[in-house]
Amino acid sequence: MSQPLILALSCADRPGIVARVTGYLAQCGCNIVEAQQFDDLLENKFFMRVAFDPGTTDREEIREGFGPIALEYGMAWTMQRRDRARRVLLMVSKFDHCLADLLYRQRIGEINMDIVGVVSNHPREAVTTHLLDGIPFHHLPITKETKPEQEAKLRALVEETRAELVVLARYMQVLSDDMTRYLSGRCINIHHSFLPGFKGAKPYHQAHARGVKMIGATAHYVTADLDEGPIIHQDVEAVTHAATPEDMVRKGRDIERRVLAEAVRLHLEERVLLNGGRTVVFKG
Amino acid sequence: MSQPLILALSCADRPGIVARVTGYLAQCGCNIVEAQQFDDLLENKFFMRVAFDPGTTDREEIREGFGPIALEYGMAWTMQRRDRARRVLLMVSKFDHCLADLLYRQRIGEINMDIVGVVSNHPREAVTTHLLDGIPFHHLPITKETKPEQEAKLRALVEETRAELVVLARYMQVLSDDMTRYLSGRCINIHHSFLPGFKGAKPYHQAHARGVKMIGATAHYVTADLDEGPIIHQDVEAVTHAATPEDMVRKGRDIERRVLAEAVRLHLEERVLLNGGRTVVFKG
Amino acid sequence: MSQPLILALSCADRPGIVARVTGYLAQCGCNIVEAQQFDDLLENKFFMRVAFDPGTTDREEIREGFGPIALEYGMAWTMQRRDRARRVLLMVSKFDHCLADLLYRQRIGEINMDIVGVVSNHPREAVTTHLLDGIPFHHLPITKETKPEQEAKLRALVEETRAELVVLARYMQVLSDDMTRYLSGRCINIHHSFLPGFKGAKPYHQAHARGVKMIGATAHYVTADLDEGPIIHQDVEAVTHAATPEDMVRKGRDIERRVLAEAVRLHLEERVLLNGGRTVVFKG
Amino acid sequence: MSQPLILALSCADRPGIVARVTGYLAQCGCNIVEAQQFDDLLENKFFMRVAFDPGTTDREEIREGFGPIALEYGMAWTMQRRDRARRVLLMVSKFDHCLADLLYRQRIGEINMDIVGVVSNHPREAVTTHLLDGIPFHHLPITKETKPEQEAKLRALVEETRAELVVLARYMQVLSDDMTRYLSGRCINIHHSFLPGFKGAKPYHQAHARGVKMIGATAHYVTADLDEGPIIHQDVEAVTHAATPEDMVRKGRDIERRVLAEAVRLHLEERVLLNGGRTVVFKG
Repeated sequence: MSQPLILALSCADRPGIVARVTGYLAQCGCNIVEAQQFDDLLENKFFMRVAFDPGTTDREEIREGFGPIALEYGMAWTMQRRDRARRVLLMVSKFDHCLADLLYRQRIGEINMDIVGVVSNHPREAVTTHLLDGIPFHHLPITKETKPEQEAKLRALVEETRAELVVLARYMQVLSDDMTRYLSGRCINIHHSFLPGFKGAKPYHQAHARGVKMIGATAHYVTADLDEGPIIHQDVEAVTHAATPEDMVRKGRDIERRVLAEAVRLHLEERVLLNGGRTVVFKG
Repeated sequence: MSQPLILALSCADRPGIVARVTGYLAQCGCNIVEAQQFDDLLENKFFMRVAFDPGTTDREEIREGFGPIALEYGMAWTMQRRDRARRVLLMVSKFDHCLADLLYRQRIGEINMDIVGVVSNHPREAVTTHLLDGIPFHHLPITKETKPEQEAKLRALVEETRAELVVLARYMQVLSDDMTRYLSGRCINIHHSFLPGFKGAKPYHQAHARGVKMIGATAHYVTADLDEGPIIHQDVEAVTHAATPEDMVRKGRDIERRVLAEAVRLHLEERVLLNGGRTVVFKG
Repeated sequence: MSQPLILALSCADRPGIVARVTGYLAQCGCNIVEAQQFDDLLENKFFMRVAFDPGTTDREEIREGFGPIALEYGMAWTMQRRDRARRVLLMVSKFDHCLADLLYRQRIGEINMDIVGVVSNHPREAVTTHLLDGIPFHHLPITKETKPEQEAKLRALVEETRAELVVLARYMQVLSDDMTRYLSGRCINIHHSFLPGFKGAKPYHQAHARGVKMIGATAHYVTADLDEGPIIHQDVEAVTHAATPEDMVRKGRDIERRVLAEAVRLHLEERVLLNGGRTVVFKG
Repeated sequence: MSQPLILALSCADRPGIVARVTGYLAQCGCNIVEAQQFDDLLENKFFMRVAFDPGTTDREEIREGFGPIALEYGMAWTMQRRDRARRVLLMVSKFDHCLADLLYRQRIGEINMDIVGVVSNHPREAVTTHLLDGIPFHHLPITKETKPEQEAKLRALVEETRAELVVLARYMQVLSDDMTRYLSGRCINIHHSFLPGFKGAKPYHQAHARGVKMIGATAHYVTADLDEGPIIHQDVEAVTHAATPEDMVRKGRDIERRVLAEAVRLHLEERVLLNGGRTVVFKG
């Protein structure tokens, strides 16, 4: 088997799309190994993800031949090699449990990515994990006054590294509207609450004060509207009256890291498609 | 073994409470079969629930003897027979899955309660379940104009039936402030969202619009502040992008009925103690 | 929109199946509203479920035209109207929580089925629920000696009612090998443990003795090999050391009824396909 | 507040134990900050865990004074400082996700332990994590022939380091009966299935073959009877038909590490008491 390609697409729904797409792939001699589609009947939109073995056909040829079909149906689409490690920039502040977790998963081959750098507003010494070896570390301190400059540096770094995804792994600075627009659709944040509950700062303390019986975490794309971006993945765990805010922080670390890692994996495998302010997630 | 008594108490924390309480019970010849306590170190409050076999000692005597201790420590307390079926009034609107579920659980002996009546703002024909046989059904229709009268009737019913608990089993009318004050601490509502997310009307439609990946339900005591009362129990289930609001409603029914039933059971077994706007729940 | 048809199929995997199937449907003027497929790369088998709006094309014509394609690919397949209520026979012994639950879900339209009868080895008085009104109740008592006769009666009943599915809703008698063969692929049982743990009798007591920290339930197709049939759905809940076997039974009732109801719904919506001793479940 | 002590005890149940224990502590001027007890009414056994602030009273004095009480009631008991880091020896084979996880949690202060060494039957190079710095690493290779010698070395290491707990963090060698006896009650293993399902080797492959819809992990004390020791903690996650054994291995890593970490934390905080072949776990 050759290395599969992944075709991910969305367009307005109309009859015959699946037949058209799969017919084309069959005609190219490709063999589908995984396929999912979703008809959003409420929005009249269609979403599809196909992983296929191109067989002996040239990848570039398949891609070019698909162009006219995509045009005909008005598709937003990508077609990429499944095995190519995407370039990812990780950002962190003081709490590095999500960072350490992502680094470990990359190290053992669980998440296929090329970590092009780690950015923090704190110095390297603040980071507990030792898995950083060989990964460029960028200390970009920030104050209210220097925010524009800091973000300019960050932006330069994204361009220089050609990062395809920026992960806010408990990076505790709010990005400017400009920056969120620039990173639109390619920046994932982990919020330490079960959104839309407890937006903003200190969500575990908010959760404790409200007396909820479950706490959670939410991985979402970053948008200008804080904690309102399209949700990719969420999870929760039960807590009791005996849990202090600190206990919740401890429990929450586990939820945060597994929710963020799952969102990153899903995104990198082209399993997440945007549907307005929501997402379509083809879990496989 | 005699039928156990349940002592539930709360007071300001100070050294020696457990020793004092359990010492008294030992001295009365009682045997503790279940005990839980919670020191809220942040609020400096103490909570305790003890189930004990009174042995050959007279129940009334034990209760009387405990009075001075409770006074000394400034305790709020109750001491009741565990096997006594509490009088419960159930309220419902059009969707009767929670009602049918509570009736069934009572019928098979899972929840020990004496259902003194079912109240609805819709006529009896609106109710699907047949388990109502023998339970007084009260049709109390309501409009904006007749709300004060309707609530007066409801109040009269609570008094006449000496209901100890009122359960809003998907009763879709907002109670007035007066009514919530009157029922304070003895009225449980099921809200069909994972509070504090999606307060107010049509929470599943809100959840769908926001694109959350889990939906839930919350059982809480009713207060004047809508959907803000002390939470007793919550649960959630995962949903995907493919779930329509109607799918969420269907899935939600299962969550709602098990969350409400658990909250009612916990309350009736004296396992829920109020701690300001939160609850202490001794699950056992 | 016309009432959709559901095409469910499985066959040996080979390139072009999806294109062939969806191409045929497009050519018939059908519009796909939901589609899922699964390539079992380990077994080289292909599974697909498509719900489609036939538009103005005659249903029978679509079905006939599909025959040759199915033949060509060696498919096992069905094509049925989605809205047709399947005929279901429910069986129960003493504990009727699953039965009452299924009856209620049918009553409110959550599960679309035509309950053609309820069979029990106990008399009607043993059943708590009142939702039986209008449904034929068959008391088929059983002893070791009368088992062959009882099963003959059951078989006659299945044929007479043309039941498409038999649900063992806590029917506590083991079916004979002959009977399981006869009902192969159309008989669902709920086992009150998280299989393969705690097969056989009194699983909650087994679970208590072993000291597990979670209990569960398993819905599976019935086969001659007891508690070994293809699993459709499972769920669990946490328990603590304080749970007695009776507490587990109580908690288990909730798990059993939701697991069985989900399995029945999935089966009736043609979402469950057999894959040897396992199942493919297209959850939607 | 002084550093609390933790008293953990078990004995045959009889009236007045709680009063006796808490009365003694009150008399010593201690203030209870957390207390849990469990009456096993089926086995007639009593279990208790109390965390208390000794105030100005000398710890040794409290301990000595408790001796006669423990003797009177036939208690098995310990009384230890809550803040003392217990000495822990970690063992690993090739898969180090549990090891890396425990090291990280210790590093950030989440689990309070003094890691006195890491033992592996593979050389240090096999370990991915870099958090080993400063922790003695012992390569103890093993073959069928050298097992007695290897275990002798291991035993010497346990004695030399005075390890209070040995954690088999995916250590894939079966300990001899002698060794399990030697480590009885102070050796925790993580098994990568939801026991009692799928004992023995390759549980994820067993789970795949059986077609279960959930996979899990189990942390338990090691006994001579393989995978039969008292269970401390378990958790599961849903899987679908699409999950290959490799997908299950990946998902399982997350479950394994959080289940093992929780079991280790519970054990080190004296929250786990043995009750025959089961455990009492005071979660707090």
